[in-house]
Amino acid sequence: MDSDTTPTSILPAHACWELLRGAAYGRLVLCIDGQPEIFPINAQVDHGTLVFRTSEGSKQREAEGALVAYEADGVLADGSRAWSVVIKGTASTIQRTAELMSTIHLPLHPWEPGRKDRFMRIVPASITGRSFEVTPVPSAQRIPAASDE
Amino acid sequence: MDSDTTPTSILPAHACWELLRGAAYGRLVLCIDGQPEIFPINAQVDHGTLVFRTSEGSKQREAEGALVAYEADGVLADGSRAWSVVIKGTASTIQRTAELMSTIHLPLHPWEPGRKDRFMRIVPASITGRSFEVTPVPSAQRIPAASDE
Repeated sequence: MDSDTTPTSILPAHACWELLRGAAYGRLVLCIDGQPEIFPINAQVDHGTLVFRTSEGSKQREAEGALVAYEADGVLADGSRAWSVVIKGTASTIQRTAELMSTIHLPLHPWEPGRKDRFMRIVPASITGRSFEVTPVPSAQRIPAASDE
Repeated sequence: MDSDTTPTSILPAHACWELLRGAAYGRLVLCIDGQPEIFPINAQVDHGTLVFRTSEGSKQREAEGALVAYEADGVLADGSRAWSVVIKGTASTIQRTAELMSTIHLPLHPWEPGRKDRFMRIVPASITGRSFEVTPVPSAQRIPAASDE
């Protein structure tokens, strides 16, 4: 991080978790052959870990056992400050039936729809967060012409 | 990406650039010794590249010459669909005076304040984007107790 951003506040761990619990989605970050990859995902806090749904695709294969990061950010209610929380840890597929059944009840509606019947868990090695003043961000946007897949 | 997310639309490159131009901020992703690192940054489109400001700190040192990714996402005006655009490429510090002077006029107010007198440019090797249906995301949040740095 930059050392000279004095208006930045370091968030204590409990504040980081509280912000993550309120964040509907974030971004999963992986390194694949030295190339950073980033995917928006819907993740939920579960007893000091993060759980997310995915399909049995490349994201799951690459994340399995890997060092990953998860970032969520947003603007606080008064609009004057933004926050960003980063979890770093290891991701693995939830295999045990009992563990899987307990995660079924988490409100894990995928941000992106589709068949996502695998659950993965990120066990954090670290959680860090900051809040800082922001310049205003634009609101929702119009979409340019898009082609359907 | 997942192959079974049928409600996903692939965005053409011009739509990706238009969405990036309207995004006030995004996230810079790096791999440092195999560990993914992610930083919220304010970046601007500049003639088919991305320019951002940073201080002369670890972020700049690590990004110099590295494979990086930049992601921005958001919810479209009608609220029904989200978009995510990812640029992958190489980052380097803007050194030449003429190039630097032309970037001075970009509206690059840092998302996070502080002394950020270095400009870096990401030259894209690829730009990809998707839009997809979303479950509602929460609005701005209250901040939990934070300690000042």
